[in-house]
Amino acid sequence: MIIICNKQKLQDGISICQKAITGKSTMPILEGIYINATKEGITLIGSDIDVCIETKVDADVLEEGKVVIDSKIFGEIIRKLPNSDVRIEIIQDDTVQITCEKSVFNVVFMNADEFPSIPKLDIAKELKVSQSILKNMIKSTSFAIAQDETRPILQGILFEVKEKKLNLVALDGYRMAIKTEYLDNDFDIEVVIPGKTLNEVSKILEDIESIVNITFTNNHILFDLGETKIISRLLEGKYVNYLSLLPQEHKLLINVNRQELQNGIERASLMAKEGNSNLVKLEMNEESIIITSNSQLGKVREEVTANMQGDPIQIAFNSRYIIDVLKNMEDDNVQIEMTSSVSPCVIKGKEAESYKYLVLPVRLIR
Amino acid sequence: MIIICNKQKLQDGISICQKAITGKSTMPILEGIYINATKEGITLIGSDIDVCIETKVDADVLEEGKVVIDSKIFGEIIRKLPNSDVRIEIIQDDTVQITCEKSVFNVVFMNADEFPSIPKLDIAKELKVSQSILKNMIKSTSFAIAQDETRPILQGILFEVKEKKLNLVALDGYRMAIKTEYLDNDFDIEVVIPGKTLNEVSKILEDIESIVNITFTNNHILFDLGETKIISRLLEGKYVNYLSLLPQEHKLLINVNRQELQNGIERASLMAKEGNSNLVKLEMNEESIIITSNSQLGKVREEVTANMQGDPIQIAFNSRYIIDVLKNMEDDNVQIEMTSSVSPCVIKGKEAESYKYLVLPVRLIR
Repeated sequence: MIIICNKQKLQDGISICQKAITGKSTMPILEGIYINATKEGITLIGSDIDVCIETKVDADVLEEGKVVIDSKIFGEIIRKLPNSDVRIEIIQDDTVQITCEKSVFNVVFMNADEFPSIPKLDIAKELKVSQSILKNMIKSTSFAIAQDETRPILQGILFEVKEKKLNLVALDGYRMAIKTEYLDNDFDIEVVIPGKTLNEVSKILEDIESIVNITFTNNHILFDLGETKIISRLLEGKYVNYLSLLPQEHKLLINVNRQELQNGIERASLMAKEGNSNLVKLEMNEESIIITSNSQLGKVREEVTANMQGDPIQIAFNSRYIIDVLKNMEDDNVQIEMTSSVSPCVIKGKEAESYKYLVLPVRLIR
Repeated sequence: MIIICNKQKLQDGISICQKAITGKSTMPILEGIYINATKEGITLIGSDIDVCIETKVDADVLEEGKVVIDSKIFGEIIRKLPNSDVRIEIIQDDTVQITCEKSVFNVVFMNADEFPSIPKLDIAKELKVSQSILKNMIKSTSFAIAQDETRPILQGILFEVKEKKLNLVALDGYRMAIKTEYLDNDFDIEVVIPGKTLNEVSKILEDIESIVNITFTNNHILFDLGETKIISRLLEGKYVNYLSLLPQEHKLLINVNRQELQNGIERASLMAKEGNSNLVKLEMNEESIIITSNSQLGKVREEVTANMQGDPIQIAFNSRYIIDVLKNMEDDNVQIEMTSSVSPCVIKGKEAESYKYLVLPVRLIR
């Protein structure tokens, strides 16, 4: 193998593939980056058990070949090189030489034949969505993924195509995030993607209109971005029937400025940190929300102007769940629907119907 | 006590005082910020055993008084408030009320009488230096302070005034940093200041010409910046006779571009990380320095163009020590003086004589 490649392009490719490499695998080969040089150019692959990321890098291939190089040391070497052409050549059975201007690295490599093969995907069902929309949908929901491992299915995000809509749903037993976008496609599907995979996908996605082709098989999902392909394992099992969790009605509708509410709750929660309860109480008056909290440190009262339609309610929340929702929203004004002090509340954008959040209150002992 | 104060000014003052509060003291009162409101305005004080920082903040004092508030919660509350006037009032024996627009915090405070008094300093000897010069002198030397506690005096920086020069010196047994500036003063003095204190001082110092008045007593040093005063305990004991460590002559003088040498050593050290030895070898040729390193991962060869005067030498270093020096220098070109592969080498700016670094080589077993 002899290849010549621009340092910056190689660095960018390594950085993309490294997002798949968790270092948590028991197989040493999975700590490496697979480099496959053919006449068409070079392909880099990073992989672990859940996800596999493959990206193409422009290069002059003087001699074909393949190697697996430790991803950490390879990434550090390329990053530290001057911005010039990098030449990579197999010089011994187990050694690759990396040269760039006056730098010469001889690095031990691993046997490329030991690298696991990429799952073969029969293109069954395919849909198209823009990078920016998909990136935004993941960001809007992934914070609500369950952190504990008691129900593995909740560590994933539901990826549901239904009636020409794409729904992403995450929930953890205390809150739920639903993000919806219209799609022009002709099939329905429902899969659950590991949350940490989707978070890595969203880091690779750019805020651009380019199309991502998404292909499904029984066990895998493929995100095809063109030069880069991401294949993720799917989680087994049926996702929660999330629609049944949404309240059918509400008794109080609140219109409030998102940033003002967030600031008020954030300040109130400063006094609620003790014992990690994060408990803040909200009392709805005619024209404002009174937020209070107290602990051994002292107490706090915040007032946020709001428009109320319906019966006043007193309710308490874990402030972290409400703050997570508010700071992931984009609208300046939000609508909050409440029924009682023990019923879940629904938070959505005043105009946009494209997302919906549900937060469970904390039941207070009176 | 009743005071009204701009939020941003109060936040800046808290941030300055917090640099003294390490949270490592066994006295709970030292986790607080002392607020003293008099007709002249308010003074904030943060303190631990080694250092005490006092700063004045503009405020309207409607009623004099003093309190000590937990520095962490106080800092967080003020930082999260809107940028508006903040009112602080004692409303109960142990409670202070902080109000700002629609936010009302009641916070428990500690008894100000329990706060340790600031050391009284008889102004004995005083010298003046600009903030930017002092900041730069600390930055140029503090990285070489000893990290281990076997010789406590080496955890300090020597602050020496001699023959109208101010010398700051730090050394740890492997390397030494000396930074010198001319002063117009009429006395000599030699004290050792705890390194971590000086690091905090340098964060408060700005890159401006304003004068710092420095006053010495037997046990303390006072940095008076005008609105802010920093008092540090001095370390007891005599500092190493650092001048005796400097080689009197050299057999090889190297002129080299600082950034190129740093890049070469940084890249070479990527292969030297294994076992934390960081060992890189330097071989001086007629017109270049060949840097090599190897480990189980592989090996590397770097070449840096340099001008040589004298006998060629092969020498090995812990790369970290050389990199620390090079990245803290300002000159584009540096001079390196060497005598043998087991003698310390001296690194200085090509033009500037204001700083000098000494690095011990690693003796190689042949």
